[in-house]
Amino acid sequence: MTDTNEQSSTRPASRRDVLIGAGGVTLGAAAAWGVGALRAAGLQPAADAPFPGTSGAPQSVGHKTGAGAGAFGDAVVDCHGVNQAGIATSPQGFLVLTAFDLAASTDLARMRRLMRLWTEDIERLTTGAATITDTEPELAHLPASLTVTVGFGPTLFDKLGIADKRPSWLAQLPAYPIDQLRDEFTGGDLVVQVCSDDPITATHAARVLAKEAKFFATPRWTQQGSRNAPGVTAPGATMRNHFGQLDGTRNPDPAEEPNLIFRKDSERWLDGGSSMVVRRIHMDLDRWDEIDVPARDIVLGRTQATGAPLTGEKEFDEPDLEARGELGFPIIDVAAHIRRARTDDGSQRILRRPYNYVEIPDAGQISNVGLVFIAFQADLQHQYLPLQAQLAELDLLNQWTTPIGSAVFAIPRGFAPGEVLGEDLFGRE
Amino acid sequence: MTDTNEQSSTRPASRRDVLIGAGGVTLGAAAAWGVGALRAAGLQPAADAPFPGTSGAPQSVGHKTGAGAGAFGDAVVDCHGVNQAGIATSPQGFLVLTAFDLAASTDLARMRRLMRLWTEDIERLTTGAATITDTEPELAHLPASLTVTVGFGPTLFDKLGIADKRPSWLAQLPAYPIDQLRDEFTGGDLVVQVCSDDPITATHAARVLAKEAKFFATPRWTQQGSRNAPGVTAPGATMRNHFGQLDGTRNPDPAEEPNLIFRKDSERWLDGGSSMVVRRIHMDLDRWDEIDVPARDIVLGRTQATGAPLTGEKEFDEPDLEARGELGFPIIDVAAHIRRARTDDGSQRILRRPYNYVEIPDAGQISNVGLVFIAFQADLQHQYLPLQAQLAELDLLNQWTTPIGSAVFAIPRGFAPGEVLGEDLFGRE
Repeated sequence: MTDTNEQSSTRPASRRDVLIGAGGVTLGAAAAWGVGALRAAGLQPAADAPFPGTSGAPQSVGHKTGAGAGAFGDAVVDCHGVNQAGIATSPQGFLVLTAFDLAASTDLARMRRLMRLWTEDIERLTTGAATITDTEPELAHLPASLTVTVGFGPTLFDKLGIADKRPSWLAQLPAYPIDQLRDEFTGGDLVVQVCSDDPITATHAARVLAKEAKFFATPRWTQQGSRNAPGVTAPGATMRNHFGQLDGTRNPDPAEEPNLIFRKDSERWLDGGSSMVVRRIHMDLDRWDEIDVPARDIVLGRTQATGAPLTGEKEFDEPDLEARGELGFPIIDVAAHIRRARTDDGSQRILRRPYNYVEIPDAGQISNVGLVFIAFQADLQHQYLPLQAQLAELDLLNQWTTPIGSAVFAIPRGFAPGEVLGEDLFGRE
Repeated sequence: MTDTNEQSSTRPASRRDVLIGAGGVTLGAAAAWGVGALRAAGLQPAADAPFPGTSGAPQSVGHKTGAGAGAFGDAVVDCHGVNQAGIATSPQGFLVLTAFDLAASTDLARMRRLMRLWTEDIERLTTGAATITDTEPELAHLPASLTVTVGFGPTLFDKLGIADKRPSWLAQLPAYPIDQLRDEFTGGDLVVQVCSDDPITATHAARVLAKEAKFFATPRWTQQGSRNAPGVTAPGATMRNHFGQLDGTRNPDPAEEPNLIFRKDSERWLDGGSSMVVRRIHMDLDRWDEIDVPARDIVLGRTQATGAPLTGEKEFDEPDLEARGELGFPIIDVAAHIRRARTDDGSQRILRRPYNYVEIPDAGQISNVGLVFIAFQADLQHQYLPLQAQLAELDLLNQWTTPIGSAVFAIPRGFAPGEVLGEDLFGRE
């Protein structure tokens, strides 16, 4: 750490300071060392990588001026924009996801104040500057592509006396027969999704935001997750989950099809916003290991090794759902996950941004693992609900997976410098 | 993943195949892309980095032939050698530490069999090759500097009927008044320390080893931890713990002072071995945050921001424990952590290799965090016990930290190709 004294004097860098044109054309000298050298090594921080499973162009990437850190630590994702960061951002390695319940004393005026505090915190933290009250400022200095994404749960609107402003689609998911939901991973008035390519940075940032909210809201649940660490896989590679499955193959490219992810809305606060579904899915890996790889391939409808559909050869090949084998049976089983998880209607696709979780096993267990499934879509009812109903009705994979948590949030539009998160909804101080 | 079919045909690469000379002189074409490019970017995978807090030379580093992964994913630490890997290895980003209890049916003959299985597994996994029975072989293909370190607890020897072979020093630590030990993090007949620069690789490898042991031993406890992700900090930087402290500043350099870490022993199985202490230390971050930074600096005897002793300017400056301020009081408090954690006797230093842990907070908590403190030292009685007694007796930091788990293990010497872990102790099949 060469910059440990800067928290007292540094303000959040302006957008111009931290942003560098995508493609490296305008890379400054400091960044040429970091991001430029990484690119030369075939590596990219999340700030600079295409969304996995897409052919998308790298995003704009910044760097934190003056830090002597490793190049992944230096990388900055701009927190400002039409959309909040952390959605179209190529998923960073680490997630800390916290849902909050409002304190009884939090009215609209106090909510505005919390949003102002969080907006400032986000502007600082994502550029590697500690907040003014941070007692461990050194843990803020390596943003490592940190993003913070804030969302509002269905219960928030009643509590703030603005029930009339709740979007009609914003509600908990229907109860599905496959669900075994636990209160400690379900619901919430507010959500804060913190992602970074460094686990300590993510943990610290989530903590700073929770402390800031102390007199406004109480943590309801926290979920942690990880994907591959930075530089471990080639940029843009699809993540594997604990079952060995490639997870997230058929994602839309946020750069090419933003309308699938971000809303056009007559309400200003949602125009450029999104809907977020969180499902905590326990994966019974100890039982999954009792079936062999050919049986798994039938369950998935894909070859586990390559991710290719059973009717194809490569991960991104289109499956032929009509194809039949010599005996006349479908090659892809009628209940295979690949079949149940898709739709012929391209406008129904969702953006999956999942993380693996690992908890300490209970006695007698070898593994206690699962997926923090996170999906963003412009239209919850048109895109997400039909898919979820279809999977809940029939999916071979359901025998080994159990949803144990569920929550839905409205994601407000992004904010420009000088704006405050949610100001069109709550008003401004 | 371009190499998903290789698990069926690839044997563990020979030592010659995977090892590349330190310093990059003999880097082959494939590695030049990966490790060489990383070096050019000022980055190093753990396999190639000096031990943090030392000026040590990079270790030898290998690469996994043929994988199209990111350069951190490709890196291989040789599992063979006079000492087991994972001790002098610059700490990787992620830890999964599992203690096992032997099954009642495990006698010496079955113990030999388990050691043979684990030795083979370790040889495969650390080179990125899945084990033969692995049902998620794709999760083994990116070793990311994977190491596996195996140790034997004091209770193992009685259970196997070889109590006479238990080293006299191998015993649980004495009960300290600061301890609030929980069974679920204490003791164990066997330990397996899995470290990797990728969290999924570490989780998977630990799982493979636990499954392999299924009929021989049962997991007693599991602890996970993380440090900075690869490429986030400059190579060799000291880790910060959740309190913001630089943790591990005064480590001996394993390359320069191996005798502090590895045993010279008349027992062949321990000659080149070590002793390992695991302490799970809960850190009351919510209460720590109630004291300000100047007060913290007094507790630590160091400036939190830079890690410098209060009598110095830089992290590695020697503290002046005799220095007094204007009023005649010691500048470094008599109970400051820096004073209580050190010894004037250089031969008493230990190698700290800690990881941060984060668990889901309980209701009302903001944070549930701590340290998986791991120390290796040649001589437990001469090096570790006096230090621990001194800290337990008086250390300002004890007001915010609580040991909740404790275990001691004897680490057998390393193994050469063709040898089996622990074969001098248990005999060979």
